[in-house]
Order: sequence, then C-alpha cells, then structure tokens
Amino acid sequence: MIPKRGEGIIFVYGTNYEQAKAEGKGFKVELVKRGEDLGIKIAGEVKGSKIKKLGLDSIAGVPNVADYLKLVRVLRGVAEIKIENEPVRALRKVKEEEELELMRNAGELTSEGMKAAYEAVKPGVREYEVAAEIEYAMRKKGSWGTAFETIVASGVRSAFPHGGCTERKIKKGDLVVVDIGATYEYYQSDMTRTIVAGKPSGKQKKIYEVVRLAQDKAFQAVKPKTKAREIDSIARKIIDEAGYREYFVHGLGHGVGIEVHEPPTLNQKSKDRLAVGNVVTIEPGIYIVGFGGIRIEDTVLVRKRRAEKFTKGPYTLEAEA
Amino acid sequence: MIPKRGEGIIFVYGTNYEQAKAEGKGFKVELVKRGEDLGIKIAGEVKGSKIKKLGLDSIAGVPNVADYLKLVRVLRGVAEIKIENEPVRALRKVKEEEELELMRNAGELTSEGMKAAYEAVKPGVREYEVAAEIEYAMRKKGSWGTAFETIVASGVRSAFPHGGCTERKIKKGDLVVVDIGATYEYYQSDMTRTIVAGKPSGKQKKIYEVVRLAQDKAFQAVKPKTKAREIDSIARKIIDEAGYREYFVHGLGHGVGIEVHEPPTLNQKSKDRLAVGNVVTIEPGIYIVGFGGIRIEDTVLVRKRRAEKFTKGPYTLEAEA
Repeated sequence: MIPKRGEGIIFVYGTNYEQAKAEGKGFKVELVKRGEDLGIKIAGEVKGSKIKKLGLDSIAGVPNVADYLKLVRVLRGVAEIKIENEPVRALRKVKEEEELELMRNAGELTSEGMKAAYEAVKPGVREYEVAAEIEYAMRKKGSWGTAFETIVASGVRSAFPHGGCTERKIKKGDLVVVDIGATYEYYQSDMTRTIVAGKPSGKQKKIYEVVRLAQDKAFQAVKPKTKAREIDSIARKIIDEAGYREYFVHGLGHGVGIEVHEPPTLNQKSKDRLAVGNVVTIEPGIYIVGFGGIRIEDTVLVRKRRAEKFTKGPYTLEAEA
Repeated sequence: MIPKRGEGIIFVYGTNYEQAKAEGKGFKVELVKRGEDLGIKIAGEVKGSKIKKLGLDSIAGVPNVADYLKLVRVLRGVAEIKIENEPVRALRKVKEEEELELMRNAGELTSEGMKAAYEAVKPGVREYEVAAEIEYAMRKKGSWGTAFETIVASGVRSAFPHGGCTERKIKKGDLVVVDIGATYEYYQSDMTRTIVAGKPSGKQKKIYEVVRLAQDKAFQAVKPKTKAREIDSIARKIIDEAGYREYFVHGLGHGVGIEVHEPPTLNQKSKDRLAVGNVVTIEPGIYIVGFGGIRIEDTVLVRKRRAEKFTKGPYTLEAEA
C-alpha cells in the first residue's frame, strides 16, 4: 500500500516476514499474523491513515476477484476503491539505468542459453533434452530461473507459437523454434531463434529470409516517438508482400521488465508510442500448419538514436555441425 | 465456459488457436480474432446459449479484477455472475487414477533432482550452481520444468522458508534448505530436504531430529476422514514440546495438483477433512533467524490405509562425501 504521503507498507504473512524485513527496501514491513485476515488488515490501515480513495493495480491478477470483492465490502463507507492500472504501468514502461543493467545481464544469460541450443539441436535428440542444455547453461552462468516455460517446438509443432516442449524426438530437416528467457534479479529477457536439424531446405531458407528481413527492418525503425503500431506495420508489410500475410498470427512484440509481458505493446491495436527506456521484443514469425514455423526475436532497448539489442546470437538456420 | 448441458468452450486468441485445436480435448475451440474483445465474445456466447447464471472461478487470478468488472458490465441485465470457486476446487481436490500416474512421475523426477542436490552441496559452491545441477537432472529425465522457483537457501538464508537461491557461496557447516519441484504433463510435485555442507553440528542434528519426528508422525496420521487441522496439530505439538514453537512459522502443508498450492490446506485454520485421492505436502520446519532453518517435505497421496509418498529421498542432513 503506497499512501500519497509517507512510507509505503508491504503486508506479509509469517512465512515470509523475516525475509521481507531482511531484503525489502523502501517499505515498512507489516506482519499479517496467523488467523488475521489480509483484507481486514489493509482496511484497518486505510482507516487509520484516513485514506478516502484507493487505486488498485489489478494487472497481475492479485488480488483475485474474490479477494477484491471482500476488500470492497470491508471498506464500504470508509474508502472508495477504483481500478487504476495506469500509474504502475507507466512507471514500469520506462526503465531506469539500474534496471537496464539487470536486463542487460538477463539478456547475456539468455544469449548463453541460445548458444547451447545451437549446439544441442540434432536429429534424434528430444525437445526437452535441448531445453535441459539451454536451462543448464543459463543457470550455471547465474540465471535466477526461466522467464517463462522454455519453448523447443520441432517439426509440425514449430507452427505453434507457444508450443512448449515435449518428448518428441527432433527429426532430420525439422524446423526447431527455440524461445527462451533467463531472469536476473527479478528482470526478464526473451529471445527466439529457429534452427534446422541438418541442412535447411530451399523453402525453409526462403521463409527464413522473409522473417529475418522483417525483424531487421522493424528493429531499424525502433526509435523514440515512433508509434508502436507502425513498427508492427513495417514487419507485417514485408511478410504480407512475400505472400505470408495470414501466417503471421500474432503481434510484433511486447514490453519486457519485471514481467515478461508488459507494456508497451507492438501490434495493430496498440496506442503506445515508443520512448527512451522502453524495453521491447521484436519477434515476427511465419507459421504454416503442417509445414512448420519460423520466428526470430530479440529483446531491445529504445535509445535516443539506435536501439540496443540485449539478446545477441547468430541469425542463421544452421545448427552447429 | 462450461454450460450445464452441452459442450464446453475454450476461447483462444490467434497465437494459440492451432495448438488448442490440435491438443485440446473435450472442448469446442473458439477463436477470438484480432480486434475482438474476449469479454464481449463470452457475453455473446452467454446470450446465445440463454445462460442466466454464471459461476466464475477466480482462484487463479484470471480474469483479473479489471476484466471481471468489464464482464459484469457487458452482461448486466443478461446474466448474473457470481464467484463460485468451490466447484472447481472440489473437483481438483480429489485426483483420479490418470492424474495420480502423472503426479507419481513428477514425484520421481523431483526425487532425481534431490539426488543431484545431495551430490552438489559442498562448501564453496554457489546456491544457483546447486540449482543448476538439480534442474538439469530433472529436465534430462523428462521434467516439463519447475513447479516453482527452486529454493537453495544456505547459511542464515536457510531461516527464510521461501529463500529462493542467490549467488551466495555455501560455507562449511552451513544448513542448506533445498525445496524443489518437477512438473509432468501440467502436474506438480514438491519436496524439501535440508543438507549440511560438511559435518553437522550437535545443535543441527538435534533440531533435525525434531523436524524429522514431526514429519514422520504427521505422515503416519494421514488417513481419510482425518481433519487436516489435526495432522498439523500432531507435527506442531512435537515441535512445541521440543521448545521450538515460535520457530515453526507456517502451516504443515497444502494440496498439490495442477497448481503447486491448491486445496486441501493443512494448518490450524483449515476446515478440510482428508479424503482418498487428496495429494498433499507434509512439511514441518524450524527457522531460527541468525542460526538457520531445517525443513523436511514430501508430497503424499491419501489412500484408504497407509498414505503413499510420491517423493522419495534419504532423511539425512549429510551431503554425499
């Protein structure tokens, strides 16, 4: 709870109380005892501080609807609660230098994971075995975990943008979409490369070049004040003109930070304008059911002049021999 | 959306549409097109099916409060929405044989991870390096990922029940709480052991024996119709009598399934009674700030007679030499 004036409060159950006191900064840590109700505890604090208006950030799904309705009930006649997602969104959209250092680190760790992927993708290897090598490489260098469920989607499964990874054995000539993210001190990263197990076919190469061009042109256009929608249009136009319009089934990208999906959003519905300090993904893809999919993605920082890539890796379909 | 009669519907955005069609079972898959609003789409379906009452499961935090309020607005005068968490909770509390097979598998994978932990914990090794070995071992055997952020909390940090893992180097004689979970086909597992890097001290051994006894006695008491609260009491009493009452700062356990925390809950506030098919953790702990913490946890299945452990590993403080 952050009052307009004075110190913020973080409410913690006993399990996490000592850790919150030891590691939390800039907040008063308030213990919610066994048997105490969090809603009633917050309500008490609201009354005590004579707060009349509460703006509630709901994006993370916390509190859930049931807890929200309870809070509304407890505070009836005491304070008004309004959903206000914008203040926190706005703060998180623009990263500070300290945050950028952590995100650069997360990007480097992710790039290490991708290096392991290029080495691990081979005919006969299972998707989850590739994931094991990727995650091990990231962890050994200091990653705090994975930003999301690692995707190693091979063969026909590569046509599913969020294909996860299964026990499927990679076959010779398969497209393998590898979408991974390391995390570092609560900051996320996001990167995709598509690798062929063996020698790429002509059609695979042709589609790859379209996605590659779309990604590069969109990246070049990443500048402050540009409409996020326009960046999406640049990539979409290249894919359209190559004849793959219907196969680019998602937006071009999304903001990355404490969560792996946060504002700004780069798609045709977006009303965002890019600004210095935004960190976004640029990730066009072409997905053909029955054939497979190709996606290329980097996490990039919007800067005054040229954008900076936090994730770095080769732009090639070819696995290491 | 599950109507009282007829087929359930799953609403999916374009990104996941083809995968939902290919992998989803028992549901009609409905595409939410770009530009379409999910709330309005659901409302249309509710109107079309002449549904007058909707029970909304809110536990997972989806929809979030803002989306919920929108749905209420769109359906005003059409259908009544009520938060109804109990139906899905009740279904999930009691696992079917098919689910239990997946959970047994998740338990075995978790036990493999713990074996790696006993090998990796050594003075001079960093917490995240131990996590790397654990997660690699689980992944290589087929784990789909981690059920939660792996905890390798050493030294004074072992006194934080949710300590995560950091770059801290483990020191000789440190207590190291290792709390891990593999996942398999969307089912989770949960297991903790506490390991000493080197030779355990007398005090460490003494506290370990208290926790071990509390865990074992509680496990022996896991039977259908027993109050969940009573199982918590059995462990709590042993810890109380040994003089560590104030250091057991959390409940004894929780249900495990599709989510790593689900009903039933084993603590002093619980109103649950155990039933055949419940899968719960039994995880007493003693946490002394400045000294460290010891927790022992297994995921167990409630059966007619003796409960079954899904996670298996040695009950010892000693790392492998």
